[in-house]
Amino acid sequence: MNGFFQKDVISIRDLGKEELDSIFSATEKIIGLDPNQRREIARGKVLGYLFFEPSTRTRLSFQSAMALIGGTSLGIADVSSSAVQKGESLSDTVRVMSGYTDVLVLRHPLDGSSRFSAEISQKPIINGGSGTEEHPTQAIQDLFTIKREKKKIDGLKIGIVGDLKYGRTVYSLLHGLCNYNVDVHLISPESLKIRKDSTYDIKKKLSYTESTNLDEYIDDLDVLYMTRIQKERFPDEEEYVKVRGSYVIGLDMVKKMKEDAIILHPLPRIDEISTDVDSSKQAKYFEQAEYGKYTRAALLGLILNKNGF
Amino acid sequence: MNGFFQKDVISIRDLGKEELDSIFSATEKIIGLDPNQRREIARGKVLGYLFFEPSTRTRLSFQSAMALIGGTSLGIADVSSSAVQKGESLSDTVRVMSGYTDVLVLRHPLDGSSRFSAEISQKPIINGGSGTEEHPTQAIQDLFTIKREKKKIDGLKIGIVGDLKYGRTVYSLLHGLCNYNVDVHLISPESLKIRKDSTYDIKKKLSYTESTNLDEYIDDLDVLYMTRIQKERFPDEEEYVKVRGSYVIGLDMVKKMKEDAIILHPLPRIDEISTDVDSSKQAKYFEQAEYGKYTRAALLGLILNKNGF
Amino acid sequence: MNGFFQKDVISIRDLGKEELDSIFSATEKIIGLDPNQRREIARGKVLGYLFFEPSTRTRLSFQSAMALIGGTSLGIADVSSSAVQKGESLSDTVRVMSGYTDVLVLRHPLDGSSRFSAEISQKPIINGGSGTEEHPTQAIQDLFTIKREKKKIDGLKIGIVGDLKYGRTVYSLLHGLCNYNVDVHLISPESLKIRKDSTYDIKKKLSYTESTNLDEYIDDLDVLYMTRIQKERFPDEEEYVKVRGSYVIGLDMVKKMKEDAIILHPLPRIDEISTDVDSSKQAKYFEQAEYGKYTRAALLGLILNKNGF
Repeated sequence: MNGFFQKDVISIRDLGKEELDSIFSATEKIIGLDPNQRREIARGKVLGYLFFEPSTRTRLSFQSAMALIGGTSLGIADVSSSAVQKGESLSDTVRVMSGYTDVLVLRHPLDGSSRFSAEISQKPIINGGSGTEEHPTQAIQDLFTIKREKKKIDGLKIGIVGDLKYGRTVYSLLHGLCNYNVDVHLISPESLKIRKDSTYDIKKKLSYTESTNLDEYIDDLDVLYMTRIQKERFPDEEEYVKVRGSYVIGLDMVKKMKEDAIILHPLPRIDEISTDVDSSKQAKYFEQAEYGKYTRAALLGLILNKNGF
Repeated sequence: MNGFFQKDVISIRDLGKEELDSIFSATEKIIGLDPNQRREIARGKVLGYLFFEPSTRTRLSFQSAMALIGGTSLGIADVSSSAVQKGESLSDTVRVMSGYTDVLVLRHPLDGSSRFSAEISQKPIINGGSGTEEHPTQAIQDLFTIKREKKKIDGLKIGIVGDLKYGRTVYSLLHGLCNYNVDVHLISPESLKIRKDSTYDIKKKLSYTESTNLDEYIDDLDVLYMTRIQKERFPDEEEYVKVRGSYVIGLDMVKKMKEDAIILHPLPRIDEISTDVDSSKQAKYFEQAEYGKYTRAALLGLILNKNGF
Repeated sequence: MNGFFQKDVISIRDLGKEELDSIFSATEKIIGLDPNQRREIARGKVLGYLFFEPSTRTRLSFQSAMALIGGTSLGIADVSSSAVQKGESLSDTVRVMSGYTDVLVLRHPLDGSSRFSAEISQKPIINGGSGTEEHPTQAIQDLFTIKREKKKIDGLKIGIVGDLKYGRTVYSLLHGLCNYNVDVHLISPESLKIRKDSTYDIKKKLSYTESTNLDEYIDDLDVLYMTRIQKERFPDEEEYVKVRGSYVIGLDMVKKMKEDAIILHPLPRIDEISTDVDSSKQAKYFEQAEYGKYTRAALLGLILNKNGF
């Protein structure tokens, strides 16, 4: 029996190196598989999505993953038009949805929402992003992209740049990187530095530096992970305008980078990476987005099939 | 040829005991069927949904039913973003949608909307809730749940509790119960008593009592059917607050019930049933929700296949 | 290899008579095909829809077309809840979506949006309506309806009536008709006459008259193509009220028409055609809507299959 069968995927912290490796292998297998065989993996199975905050990208990534392996998706893309509006609890919504489907993906603004839901759901729950720190399938996608594009993760120098305070994906990625022997450089404006209270565990397992100066590291990085500085996170628009342009990657910056470095971004981007960078060979963020389809398909395939696929 | 083939399902009043029995048998068959065989029932068929008032639950129940039997669903989940906004009539919307699909489910605030639509549609129409009284697939689901959990319907003592004035499901359930030999107790606040003008037909076929006192009946019921007291039905919030907590089922109430009684609820609930009741053996409302998937799948299967399945 | 394989469909102007004929043949083939064979055409393929302005009808037509040939659809029905809200560019949205899907349909208010998207997408783009003039799949549907119902297009007298200034479908239809030897009569209020600057190319290939008087032509037309006078196009409500009722087709008008004439309408209609006309034998607008499913299925089938189907 494979270890993911009928299991919840709540936090990247629950996944060790071995688990990650088996997801990566399954992903490579999915990519290489004949489409007809691929469609057998989830034939007749139904993925339910419950999005308590909108995330078109994550939803479509899951839907396309499910379609790739022959399954169907249904659910609530935006909770504002649902029964929850009538005062229904998360718990009831999850229980009813789990009666309609074989596996559920939940997106929710509150920390702990996924773990709570997993306790009451009859079907496996995948956390599609919750609270301020958890987005395990994004971290899996990011790690897979690094591994596939750089042929390894251990030994890499990884710069993570931008909004490190509010960016949910950053915390999940850092927890994922704890499984590897990497040098991490966190680069952000002072006001967007990583939260001390959230890195307590990370600090014990991962060596990282903090800086406000990207120039200092740019020529040495193997992986440059950019993030969006989200306007909606700032209480004050003036503060936003001040830091917004701080870390913009243009072709001038790319020229300083190693030939075989890669640039990643969880997307959507606004102007952190200028569009003329898109055609540089370092730019791998669109590949990263597409790999998300394959990693999610692999995860769903493992959850739904006792003996893997 | 099965009697539902290419037929509309507009009102529970159109279904006699024999028709209900054939839906119940088909439902049992669906539940027992091998998934691969199940998926053949609606293979390549398309269900269209047209929801002129939002009902995520009913929509997802139909979508999951269609997926279970191998079909696809598409449609308008919320009419506010549709052509209807441009002034299109219900009649035109139904005619166009019926050209895209094999069977249609319509949800509409107006009485008569489904019957009207059935007259102009080329494809069978299923009423997914209309006006103040009609919700036939909910009634089928409720009756099936009673039959499956209690092994019979005839001879049961059934309490229906809460908002009996505005609850669409209550009227449909009562009409469905007219086919059986049952004792019904209607229990509600004075201001939410069942409407006299709507029970004219029911009164001739069904013996029921009316009361404001649940305590009087609780220990004698075989089925306790709870309903939500809907805030949006009250013109006056003060009146709502007054009756809201009148009939709340907690563990203290469950203890008074028969060992083998069952508690049902069409969901969503707010606080009519406290959550600690969920794990009592009488609680069957989540099973009831899941049975809705199977009864709808059975109905769709009968409508779409000449000789049944 | 068929000429549409992996090709974009951006403008009806890119399609010559030969291309149109091959779509029409493919459509006839789809209509005649056994459902089981039909479902093989796009088995396991995914259509992505990206609607930057809502069009339930066009979306559902594409979704039903894809379902008919065995494929799946996913996407953004209404961009207001998507990542684009967070400031993402059209270009990024298209690139990410093209990684999730096999073919994309784009609806967008701006001229040129589809051609621009096709340049950056890895997957074929179908224009599902853009700017003021382009709606190629609607024109294909209209031309197919004429050909199927009248057994030919050459030699017909075609009246196009209503809002010729703002109606996107009218310009696409006129460009399509340039491939045929037809007499076209454009009939509209003065304030809604066709735009001079947009008919420069059409004028060189197509002979048409302009008039405000439908009565003059009604008894001579083979095809009467009605359009909706869209309230939202008028800056001034008074002006709208003035022209609104100018060209209403009732049974009195139908009586003046040739026995074998046909009435078309891209729908939705408001009151340009009274509902008692629906049952006249000239009324073909609901057939036209259904043909849209088959022409789109044919187009998708050609784009997705190297050697056709």
